[in-house]
Amino acid sequence: MIYLDNAATSYPKPEEVYKAVDKCFREYGANPGRSGHKLALKAGRGIYETRELICKLFNIDNPMQIIFTYNATDSLNLAIKGILKKGDHVITSGMEHNSVIRPIKALEKIGVENTIVECDHEGIIKINELKRAIKNNTKLIVITHASNVTGTLMPIKEIGKIAKERGVLFLVDAAQTAGVYNIDVNEMNIDLLAFPGHKSLMGPQGTGGLYIRQGIELNHMKEGGTGSKSESLLQPEIVPDRYESGTPNTPGIVGLGAGIKYILDIGIDNIRKHEENLTEYMLNGLKNIDEIKIYGPKDVKRRAAVISINIGDLDSSEVSYVLDQGFDIAVRSGLHCAPLAHKTLGSFEQGTVRFSIGYFNTKEDIDKALNAVRMIYEEM
Amino acid sequence: MIYLDNAATSYPKPEEVYKAVDKCFREYGANPGRSGHKLALKAGRGIYETRELICKLFNIDNPMQIIFTYNATDSLNLAIKGILKKGDHVITSGMEHNSVIRPIKALEKIGVENTIVECDHEGIIKINELKRAIKNNTKLIVITHASNVTGTLMPIKEIGKIAKERGVLFLVDAAQTAGVYNIDVNEMNIDLLAFPGHKSLMGPQGTGGLYIRQGIELNHMKEGGTGSKSESLLQPEIVPDRYESGTPNTPGIVGLGAGIKYILDIGIDNIRKHEENLTEYMLNGLKNIDEIKIYGPKDVKRRAAVISINIGDLDSSEVSYVLDQGFDIAVRSGLHCAPLAHKTLGSFEQGTVRFSIGYFNTKEDIDKALNAVRMIYEEM
Repeated sequence: MIYLDNAATSYPKPEEVYKAVDKCFREYGANPGRSGHKLALKAGRGIYETRELICKLFNIDNPMQIIFTYNATDSLNLAIKGILKKGDHVITSGMEHNSVIRPIKALEKIGVENTIVECDHEGIIKINELKRAIKNNTKLIVITHASNVTGTLMPIKEIGKIAKERGVLFLVDAAQTAGVYNIDVNEMNIDLLAFPGHKSLMGPQGTGGLYIRQGIELNHMKEGGTGSKSESLLQPEIVPDRYESGTPNTPGIVGLGAGIKYILDIGIDNIRKHEENLTEYMLNGLKNIDEIKIYGPKDVKRRAAVISINIGDLDSSEVSYVLDQGFDIAVRSGLHCAPLAHKTLGSFEQGTVRFSIGYFNTKEDIDKALNAVRMIYEEM
Repeated sequence: MIYLDNAATSYPKPEEVYKAVDKCFREYGANPGRSGHKLALKAGRGIYETRELICKLFNIDNPMQIIFTYNATDSLNLAIKGILKKGDHVITSGMEHNSVIRPIKALEKIGVENTIVECDHEGIIKINELKRAIKNNTKLIVITHASNVTGTLMPIKEIGKIAKERGVLFLVDAAQTAGVYNIDVNEMNIDLLAFPGHKSLMGPQGTGGLYIRQGIELNHMKEGGTGSKSESLLQPEIVPDRYESGTPNTPGIVGLGAGIKYILDIGIDNIRKHEENLTEYMLNGLKNIDEIKIYGPKDVKRRAAVISINIGDLDSSEVSYVLDQGFDIAVRSGLHCAPLAHKTLGSFEQGTVRFSIGYFNTKEDIDKALNAVRMIYEEM
């Protein structure tokens, strides 16, 4: 099986991650932050170490400003709904995933306005339109760092600067970039950073996180046991407890720590270089096949390792099915939970066939994928 | 290490659970319900099988009525906030965990009334007071199946009958009973059942669930990608997608399935019998030590395998510390995230030392615990 569906979840994981999860699960799978015995303390330390590794990766000052969640969608909901109240205005882009658009649309019902800023045919946000969209009641800008359909990289540093100048909070959805692209929350003026644990951070599913800049207070969406201030019937105010209720996914979070440690050891630049090389190689190969439509930027420096294509008018689901059944190649077809992005790209009806490359893919994988595409094209 | 903190999280897990998680993670750790390739389909089937096993355990008709969540707290928040609106009234008991009380208290701010029905000194709800508390605007009764402090079993079948007669929805918090006590959502008239995956169901942390009776529609707390109706900017209405956004914890849910399969193989009655025997053995042993105060019912048929005690006036945290450091016995002290329960029991100032027994504990474990308690008492 050639796995080219890393934008959905990275697979495989480093051996260190499998081992860390299993070791934690078997040897100290207690409840962290509740009881005071040795196993519980060890579990608590494991979680704290992952917080520290995340800080290192994103240049975050205080490990307590990182909230662990179920997945990036959970993080985005907490951030968007935690910030926005009736009468507020939020700005986002026409390339967002449903994990951003659906919460924003749901908030219309309680009187939160939104503006969806147009993107060009490659999926890049029109910065002047973004600037023009800012109003007196604009509270938040939410932008994906890279499109999950085309990999298009957004100018988040530039947007962060604009947000800061205009006094608007800035939330970045790093679902497709965390672990591969440099993210510095201070340099980029990112106030809130949502990320999944199970994609390029190489951790297990069931993990995600939200960084919240110190001084920003969100409404909490959940209340419950936190192991702190047990005597109070109200949610404690201290972070991360304020936003983390109930037993966390200890082995998952420890595994996420192992994933980040792996990334820091290899070096994020080396990982990106590898993915860029394979992306460029695949883009060049695809350009040599007739009737292949490639979406998004052609320049590999302007896109992450996600390549969406269509082969003539062939149905994207059918192509994916043939790739799986005939060539043992795993990709994802359709709309990728991002209908707006496909409207921007003009692929809403056909969908696209998405190849998403990970650190463990090789040149041989790409050769086989290109060969398969060529054969499907020739037989169509 | 003698682990007697199973009410916080069960440990160890059956070997089958460790293996199932590792196998899924390594061999088919793809994204279920999104892509259509073989690995994704296998992941999706794994999750569906766990839904079916949960149905078998709780006599649920339709696997699609089970929502997977991050933990039981997540499930309880979804249920409580999904049902209650301004002007509604909710009834709960004076033995609840903060995962029930804190969301209910948070809802006061938006105008949801609540009544906390008193419990007797053993922690059993006063049924007549419960009946009297029902008003015209009572929408929901939320009751724990068993206290996490004393193990006190609540008469949930009786409460379910009352709720049904009075047209009130009934939510049961099965955090301490799912997997050990018989729960039949039909026979017991349970409309909503919240359960953790990582306690007596023997699954991994990062898993929980909520059963929602067919026909009951909750407000969703989160929106995002569901892999279904990708073209829509609004959350799909179909269950479970309506309440399950973003990538689920696939290896965790598969592991939970392995835990439930283990329980069904052993037989839930055999598991309960084992835990009851050890509980009775420990209660009898404790009664023979002077100055031990045991909280909750003395009759083992009226309590789950959770034993809270105090040794004279000794600080509960100090006793736990000595048990851990001096005897290598893991318990939990303090208020156990259930301040109301401790107020009911009269242990709010001192807290209690909680021994919680699991299926993998043995008579020798209990002997060692009793011996340690005796020694601490003698040296105090």
